[in-house]
Amino acid sequence: MRAETAYDELIQRVREETLLTSCEALLEWDEETYMPPGGVENRSEQLALLAGLLHERGTDPKIGELLAELERSDLVADPRSPVSVNIRELRREYDRYVRLPRRLVEEVARTTALAQTAWAQARAASQFKGFRPWLDKIIALKRDEAECVGYSGEPYDALIEDHEPGIDSRILARLFDALRQNLVQLAAEIAERPALPPAPRGPFPVDQQRSFGEMVAVVAGFDRRRGRFDLGVHPSCSGIGPGDCRLVLRFDQGDLVGGVLTILHEVGHGLYEQGLDPSYYGTPMGESASVSMDEAQARLWENRVGRSPGFWRYFYPRCRELFPDALRGYGLDRFVLAVNQVKATLIRVNADEVTYNLHILVRFELERALMSGDLKSADVPEAWNAAYRRYLGVVPPNDREGCLQDGHWADGLIGYFPTYTLGDVFAAQLFAQAESELGDLESQFAQGEFAELAGWLRRKVYREGSRYPSARLIELVTGSPPNQRPLIDALRNKYARLYRL
Amino acid sequence: MRAETAYDELIQRVREETLLTSCEALLEWDEETYMPPGGVENRSEQLALLAGLLHERGTDPKIGELLAELERSDLVADPRSPVSVNIRELRREYDRYVRLPRRLVEEVARTTALAQTAWAQARAASQFKGFRPWLDKIIALKRDEAECVGYSGEPYDALIEDHEPGIDSRILARLFDALRQNLVQLAAEIAERPALPPAPRGPFPVDQQRSFGEMVAVVAGFDRRRGRFDLGVHPSCSGIGPGDCRLVLRFDQGDLVGGVLTILHEVGHGLYEQGLDPSYYGTPMGESASVSMDEAQARLWENRVGRSPGFWRYFYPRCRELFPDALRGYGLDRFVLAVNQVKATLIRVNADEVTYNLHILVRFELERALMSGDLKSADVPEAWNAAYRRYLGVVPPNDREGCLQDGHWADGLIGYFPTYTLGDVFAAQLFAQAESELGDLESQFAQGEFAELAGWLRRKVYREGSRYPSARLIELVTGSPPNQRPLIDALRNKYARLYRL
Repeated sequence: MRAETAYDELIQRVREETLLTSCEALLEWDEETYMPPGGVENRSEQLALLAGLLHERGTDPKIGELLAELERSDLVADPRSPVSVNIRELRREYDRYVRLPRRLVEEVARTTALAQTAWAQARAASQFKGFRPWLDKIIALKRDEAECVGYSGEPYDALIEDHEPGIDSRILARLFDALRQNLVQLAAEIAERPALPPAPRGPFPVDQQRSFGEMVAVVAGFDRRRGRFDLGVHPSCSGIGPGDCRLVLRFDQGDLVGGVLTILHEVGHGLYEQGLDPSYYGTPMGESASVSMDEAQARLWENRVGRSPGFWRYFYPRCRELFPDALRGYGLDRFVLAVNQVKATLIRVNADEVTYNLHILVRFELERALMSGDLKSADVPEAWNAAYRRYLGVVPPNDREGCLQDGHWADGLIGYFPTYTLGDVFAAQLFAQAESELGDLESQFAQGEFAELAGWLRRKVYREGSRYPSARLIELVTGSPPNQRPLIDALRNKYARLYRL
Repeated sequence: MRAETAYDELIQRVREETLLTSCEALLEWDEETYMPPGGVENRSEQLALLAGLLHERGTDPKIGELLAELERSDLVADPRSPVSVNIRELRREYDRYVRLPRRLVEEVARTTALAQTAWAQARAASQFKGFRPWLDKIIALKRDEAECVGYSGEPYDALIEDHEPGIDSRILARLFDALRQNLVQLAAEIAERPALPPAPRGPFPVDQQRSFGEMVAVVAGFDRRRGRFDLGVHPSCSGIGPGDCRLVLRFDQGDLVGGVLTILHEVGHGLYEQGLDPSYYGTPMGESASVSMDEAQARLWENRVGRSPGFWRYFYPRCRELFPDALRGYGLDRFVLAVNQVKATLIRVNADEVTYNLHILVRFELERALMSGDLKSADVPEAWNAAYRRYLGVVPPNDREGCLQDGHWADGLIGYFPTYTLGDVFAAQLFAQAESELGDLESQFAQGEFAELAGWLRRKVYREGSRYPSARLIELVTGSPPNQRPLIDALRNKYARLYRL
């Protein structure tokens, strides 16, 4: 067989797998947004079947043969060519996939579909014990997964590797160590200063927040002809396919700022998704570089854009028109201070920039201990609360505001949380580089102008797909390998100014 | 292999096919309700892939082997046993399916997904020519389909057989002939009498109509924990799986009655879907007896319930609370007359009971001629308008109100329209029988009591699944084979009274 023919066959197979994955994505989006309660059993069976089909196709020995043939051919001569990139990444995925038995991937799909409902009910009742058997089952399945795919250090590493190749728990522990020292210190200095004004409490009716938030998303560059917005319990961005990217949002009528930052977070994911090259759809060259690079886009838009004075200079007048009573007495300057208030609190998704990564640290430590067996699921609430006391100085009064607040574990996403912190690190590096090339971005934001930043990200990051591993991409774009210093510096500079440290 | 083992394997395979079909159903529902415009290309590829996978599995020779073995076994001794029924129906489906090449089913899925968008655009622009190339393509594909599966009379018969086994175009022509004579005559007599009061024109805000309609659905017995309501261009009922039945609704702020009748139509489908035996889910015993039997439920709830004075005696006071201005001057009696006004109009879904089947007659004649080649697609608008003049005495002023009004052809549903008329015939037979067994139902409706009718239908029809062919089921339940007489009699008796003929 000629190499070109082998490549065409490989890509044809992979594109079909992507189509099946996009069916999965729609089923999962629907489960989060519209599915009636009675549909959950069938949904879990549908997802298990699709997972099984994907496994059957993704582990077909024919793929291994095609890859082996292509790896010996001239097609891989230039490692940066799209063909080489696709072969490299498909090899990585295939080698992982063939180690997982079909029974296991089906069971993970079935279990996590059911566990989401159990988690939502346990969270509503604020009782961890309703979720505990599901967590046990998921941890057991994830341990099986780790044993199947293998790891050099500890089982948790196998899961991290799935989300961020090249990273392991020791690297993360060092990163969190550096961040913890700096951030705990910075938070402590801030806590000694007078508090900034608290955010206004509303009420901000959800319908109006939603239409305002959708307008913000569109101004930021989200294309709603190729996407949409819906409400759900857990905010998310689903790429259903090229031309179909869906943001799931959540609004709280007491929290205008949180609603806007949430939408900007998901818009960051959405711009990446919508900015990928559609001609490579269905292949690694048309996919994001890594989960952390994806989170970097979300964190960049949420924090570097959404917490900036320039952003609010443009949007705040519109807020005051929409919510005149609730914002009475809040001038722009006061509002911007409120947006940037630093205060250790209980809920990750509402956390400020300084303490956010301490929330992630808690999850990292607990996940790692659950996977190693050092922590029993029954002890999760206590361990969670102790870690919050240790790093943030606050203690959740109940499980809903404690260990039940996130749906990730119910989704089977163990080893995912650290990608938020890696994403934060990448985002700070990318934003600093963008400013050094494009000049002062905030003055553009103040004009409602986000296209230059979005265009830079599209050219430098989105269009590259998976051409480079994320660490390499960061180095190529910013001139420096992954490094927490720009994040720490950005936070210290910003908050030293705001809090007059 | 023991017969029981063979049966278990067959059912396992069929259940997996049903799961894939339920994924298709969700994708189609989403295309109708929430998918952004940019998603249509990918959706057509998703649906084509699922159609191909279903074909691959549904035509696996192993199924033929299992069926042959089971047909020789003791398991089929009692033809009414669930096992026998499943084997009988699966044989029928298999024999049809193996005649269709995979290329064709994929192409039909891909084309109809795209054609729906083209149809919606052509309809919005009221220009048939935008839809014409798609109709040509669909007719060509459907002719291929007919040639593949075979037919004794004409190609159209192969499509009718798909929706209603045992029926062909000659049987339908005789049925429509009898109906045409009686209904044209009845409509003419009515046209000579003074008109009943016109329906109130609103405005009836869509949000309020929607919440009223959903309340009606729930009172009628629709279980919203195992289903939901959404808005879309084309009303429909989708059974996504056991516990997940979704009604797509459409409201017009000038038409309260139409909105309620539409919801009752879809509720009729939904009650059937929700009343099937879930323990047989995924097998013919857990599916409706036929498309016409399904439409019978819809037409029964829409017309026998929704146009009855008793129904409105219960619900009308609530309408007057919701819409006091728009209903000023409309007492209950006047409103019930307005609901039952007979007048030849342009739009099928808004038609009264007397002229409705003349709308279907138009579609039956045109479909049949398109399939035989006697009618060219370019001539559809003219032929449509001529048929409306001939049977209904009205002529559409444009294509939107003419040949572009229904999405069925864009969906690839050729040969489907006649099932509405068969459904009407069955519905009249069923309702007459229900009244003879249960006594006066209208007085129950007037108390908001629909459970006795719903329970009777569940026992007699829904729970039987596909145990009997629909004609046989009608005969077993009503004591008479399918017969248009009860429909004609019910209409004549009712309208002779209302119009004092």
